[in-house]
Amino acid sequence: MVKMGYMKRGLLAIVSHPDDETFGCGGTLAAHASGAPVDVLCLTCNPPERRDELFSAARALGIGEPTVFDDLHVEKIDQLIRRISDVIVEKRPKVVVTHLPFDYHREHRAAYEAVKEAVEWAAHTTTYDEPYLVERLLLMEVNTLIPQPHVLVDITGAMDRKMEAVEGYTSQLAKFPWGYYQNINLKRAELRGVQAGCKYAEAYLEEPVPSNSPFYEAKATHSLL
Amino acid sequence: MVKMGYMKRGLLAIVSHPDDETFGCGGTLAAHASGAPVDVLCLTCNPPERRDELFSAARALGIGEPTVFDDLHVEKIDQLIRRISDVIVEKRPKVVVTHLPFDYHREHRAAYEAVKEAVEWAAHTTTYDEPYLVERLLLMEVNTLIPQPHVLVDITGAMDRKMEAVEGYTSQLAKFPWGYYQNINLKRAELRGVQAGCKYAEAYLEEPVPSNSPFYEAKATHSLL
Amino acid sequence: MVKMGYMKRGLLAIVSHPDDETFGCGGTLAAHASGAPVDVLCLTCNPPERRDELFSAARALGIGEPTVFDDLHVEKIDQLIRRISDVIVEKRPKVVVTHLPFDYHREHRAAYEAVKEAVEWAAHTTTYDEPYLVERLLLMEVNTLIPQPHVLVDITGAMDRKMEAVEGYTSQLAKFPWGYYQNINLKRAELRGVQAGCKYAEAYLEEPVPSNSPFYEAKATHSLL
Amino acid sequence: MVKMGYMKRGLLAIVSHPDDETFGCGGTLAAHASGAPVDVLCLTCNPPERRDELFSAARALGIGEPTVFDDLHVEKIDQLIRRISDVIVEKRPKVVVTHLPFDYHREHRAAYEAVKEAVEWAAHTTTYDEPYLVERLLLMEVNTLIPQPHVLVDITGAMDRKMEAVEGYTSQLAKFPWGYYQNINLKRAELRGVQAGCKYAEAYLEEPVPSNSPFYEAKATHSLL
Amino acid sequence: MVKMGYMKRGLLAIVSHPDDETFGCGGTLAAHASGAPVDVLCLTCNPPERRDELFSAARALGIGEPTVFDDLHVEKIDQLIRRISDVIVEKRPKVVVTHLPFDYHREHRAAYEAVKEAVEWAAHTTTYDEPYLVERLLLMEVNTLIPQPHVLVDITGAMDRKMEAVEGYTSQLAKFPWGYYQNINLKRAELRGVQAGCKYAEAYLEEPVPSNSPFYEAKATHSLL
Amino acid sequence: MVKMGYMKRGLLAIVSHPDDETFGCGGTLAAHASGAPVDVLCLTCNPPERRDELFSAARALGIGEPTVFDDLHVEKIDQLIRRISDVIVEKRPKVVVTHLPFDYHREHRAAYEAVKEAVEWAAHTTTYDEPYLVERLLLMEVNTLIPQPHVLVDITGAMDRKMEAVEGYTSQLAKFPWGYYQNINLKRAELRGVQAGCKYAEAYLEEPVPSNSPFYEAKATHSLL
Repeated sequence: MVKMGYMKRGLLAIVSHPDDETFGCGGTLAAHASGAPVDVLCLTCNPPERRDELFSAARALGIGEPTVFDDLHVEKIDQLIRRISDVIVEKRPKVVVTHLPFDYHREHRAAYEAVKEAVEWAAHTTTYDEPYLVERLLLMEVNTLIPQPHVLVDITGAMDRKMEAVEGYTSQLAKFPWGYYQNINLKRAELRGVQAGCKYAEAYLEEPVPSNSPFYEAKATHSLL
Repeated sequence: MVKMGYMKRGLLAIVSHPDDETFGCGGTLAAHASGAPVDVLCLTCNPPERRDELFSAARALGIGEPTVFDDLHVEKIDQLIRRISDVIVEKRPKVVVTHLPFDYHREHRAAYEAVKEAVEWAAHTTTYDEPYLVERLLLMEVNTLIPQPHVLVDITGAMDRKMEAVEGYTSQLAKFPWGYYQNINLKRAELRGVQAGCKYAEAYLEEPVPSNSPFYEAKATHSLL
Repeated sequence: MVKMGYMKRGLLAIVSHPDDETFGCGGTLAAHASGAPVDVLCLTCNPPERRDELFSAARALGIGEPTVFDDLHVEKIDQLIRRISDVIVEKRPKVVVTHLPFDYHREHRAAYEAVKEAVEWAAHTTTYDEPYLVERLLLMEVNTLIPQPHVLVDITGAMDRKMEAVEGYTSQLAKFPWGYYQNINLKRAELRGVQAGCKYAEAYLEEPVPSNSPFYEAKATHSLL
Repeated sequence: MVKMGYMKRGLLAIVSHPDDETFGCGGTLAAHASGAPVDVLCLTCNPPERRDELFSAARALGIGEPTVFDDLHVEKIDQLIRRISDVIVEKRPKVVVTHLPFDYHREHRAAYEAVKEAVEWAAHTTTYDEPYLVERLLLMEVNTLIPQPHVLVDITGAMDRKMEAVEGYTSQLAKFPWGYYQNINLKRAELRGVQAGCKYAEAYLEEPVPSNSPFYEAKATHSLL
Repeated sequence: MVKMGYMKRGLLAIVSHPDDETFGCGGTLAAHASGAPVDVLCLTCNPPERRDELFSAARALGIGEPTVFDDLHVEKIDQLIRRISDVIVEKRPKVVVTHLPFDYHREHRAAYEAVKEAVEWAAHTTTYDEPYLVERLLLMEVNTLIPQPHVLVDITGAMDRKMEAVEGYTSQLAKFPWGYYQNINLKRAELRGVQAGCKYAEAYLEEPVPSNSPFYEAKATHSLL
Repeated sequence: MVKMGYMKRGLLAIVSHPDDETFGCGGTLAAHASGAPVDVLCLTCNPPERRDELFSAARALGIGEPTVFDDLHVEKIDQLIRRISDVIVEKRPKVVVTHLPFDYHREHRAAYEAVKEAVEWAAHTTTYDEPYLVERLLLMEVNTLIPQPHVLVDITGAMDRKMEAVEGYTSQLAKFPWGYYQNINLKRAELRGVQAGCKYAEAYLEEPVPSNSPFYEAKATHSLL
């Protein structure tokens, strides 16, 4: 039996490093934080101090306490897939957000690979007693931009919280004393806002997720409408 | 103002030749025919006699009267795109179904190209006074199979009507007196049925359609949930 | 000197898991079992009990005793390639059958990668004293279908043995008490049979194998006819 | 004999429609306008009134009078290639700028195809008495963004002229009375400016152009340094 | 009834321009000319004088009189496909040779597209009373090289005839008075000869051709051995 | 502070195995050896004796003493990237040469992957105190040919040294007593020479390297001319 509180109601962002969740989809997470569970799974924590920054960011965004793997790098993909699908099955999010397959960062591309597999295996009746089928998989932009987004989420009301979360990543911001991370997050949100007809927005690609499979509980669709 | 009866309620299959709509998605069309507008746009009619077969098939499936372009081949794509988007804007379907981009048939691949463009341009506020944004674009299988479908539609209750529509394509069936078209439609539906945990099914790929764009009325998404 | 009995006469199926050889190409293996050596190399055996099922399946198909690697997963590709090419050089099959590069299963895609490399290195005069050049590499379908097959093998006369081998995989069948594996194997064989103009068939893609190379014994072709 | 004033000194933007040159690379054109020939070739002019807007934009940018083909659409690619290479051979630009091959606009993708071919044929000694080899081919962004640019050009000193040219496209701006084109040009320049460490920038992909060929005058490179 | 003399015994080279057949596969054609029908279909002849050169080349190679389409360019692909398949059905070659899909020449890539489709349609029982299934489709190199060939044909015994045919293309050779075409043909044959362990060779990619299809006479394969 | 002698003046070849640097770009290295630093980084040395051959080859080519990693295979890419970028940052070459991404040899493809990443990370201000941005990345041919090269380097004056270096690889040459490696190097240089209008040449693909990035010192380009 599916636990009621988590039944396809929330979002789960699965990211490579602390700060990716804020830079990539922080506004979206904050905007959905009231009324639905919003969670983060971070696949690495290197150096360990970044964990504190991640937890601060989560508080600024108003979302739940992040789940963090202590890995130094996104590697050993085969074992990682299972660890990710365990979290998906536990959290039961309606929407999963992760990195782009053409992200310039090697560990972001690896996260995409692992998450895509994990979404599949989480839904298999042969791997889990209570398998879980994610409804949507969205891919976010950090430093690499999406040429033509499928989805633009209005984050105007959440932009303050996003920027507060950005500001908390002092270890990262310090690498660019001229304010790169603050500015890129601001200007990218403005650009996407222009496209979205609002002040600030975040952009996503939609990666189609199978709705049916012999290995899922949802084997057939009865109505497309 | 959007006409109420057509407001994102139905399906529109856009196909290269008479019979593609029946072989590729006839069960799905029939299964949705009560309670929502279900339409077919056929991009060619060569020779002209196939028009009668198409209209018979539509009656067998219980759907509306098809729209037919009198072209002999799927060609002159640039002009074709606009003619297709005109139909999309008029019919306002929630779901559009068309061919696979890797279909073995050249004119099926060309239809995919044209439909994908038409779905985009139909939604532009700069091209139409009452532009229209399709919600889902599904790709069907005729002779070329989908390796791993995203959607399996249960057509068990509509299989009789699909097979009746198949049987009406006497000009095509006559090319294979050993019953190829009847059998392939039956056996493919059975195979997809096994995967879908029902008796008969049809399989589709989901092609993601943008939800927002500066050129659409729907510029931003306010909630992903 | 090449051992006479194995001189480009037979088939070798190289698969990821016990049951892949039966589901993917069991009918073809059985159909060729008299008059030519027909072998299976299985790259994993996890859990170990599946070995018995594999040996039973081989008996049902009427083929030789399988070679089984005790690995739990298809991984460490670099070492695996050499272990596979050793088997190819020993067995000297005319035709090698393996998985699809676009199979939905990660370990099937990995098997394809490894087998393709192994076929190349098995033929190198610099790696083997008695190198061996496979003539054809065919790719089979398990759960992922081939959109447009290159080869359809008539397995009508061997279908009983294939289904007997399927039935022996009780550990796998038990996962789907509604009979998924039996039904999918039956219905896929029927669908391919309709395309092949016979009762039951199996489908393959042909992956071209080089005929000549400076590193092969067969450096030049003297007639294409 | 090569005309001295044009010997690999300038830029040539080859675009699909009037306004693409301003939106895509107007700042770059303006920034290079003193000290080198900077030209525009526009492949269509539909409706004819847009020609005046293009000429105004060129004046605002401070560049030469545009060359305009009177075509309504980017089509009949084969003939178009030769007409474009004629202009390249006449203008002899060091750098050619055009659209992205993955631009969302069909006519932008077609322009890319034609320009890439034209750059090749312009250099052939068998097609021109005075063939000409372009040194760099850069691809610009209009509505479709470049995920990871190769080149970011600082246009801070030319931003006023770019925005003046944008403002002159009244027929286009009128389609979006909420100021889309003004805002997107501003915000994109700011975002690229953040990445480029300056106030405003434009982004490009570099498409490698052959330096040598048996069909070019420049058959060999003698030093890479 | 199939004409005996042409029953899967020979070669047919289908090329874009007069000289492609000599430069790309002239040695192979000459080497097979005794004992099997060897034919050329040339898709264009522009200017008309090149027809004489083509006929001279065919005589030098010792092959049959070429079939020549009077088109100026490889265009209007849809109609061209049918004209090519008509020739395939008439000639009934075992092997068809044509251009590479990644050839640098646009009209060579178009020829590949058309030939690949024509090979398919020539085999359809629904298009021809005496359909014909080509056994092998080989792709040759002219100016664009094959990175890793599948087939290297020893043309040592036919190299004199190839070079005689090359020398006859005086209209083309005149464009490169330093002897480019003679030298490239010589040196490429030598390079491929080194790889093939002989003096002179020609290289090909193998494009897999379906052996079976519901639309072919050859619906099923009964033995892979 | 950048060391003067190495400031974007030289070449660095990064190769998988001893002999790749000679076969792939030995002529180019030798041709540039006077007047600029020319270096080799070899990623493996297996068996250890090949190190001596590599050092002899470097002496024959007239270049500096190679840097050699003692790895047996090109593997553990993640760690390898950093070790390569360390060498790039130390050597500060204007041009890096490495393998093709479509090379038939698995370890050559892996080298390409690692080098491409290393070139990126070497330029990051966040990874190095004295980061370094390579200007050009060129890809060379060993056994796999480049279909259409971007650059042909005239190595006529250096061919003697290249062939002397080739001759020193006695452990490799011994595998092909019929002289394969000597001949392929000679004939490939002749073929590329014909294309380059000289006696001997080497061919390369150009892989575009970003000129600017927020993570580089070179954030913006101020002039394209």
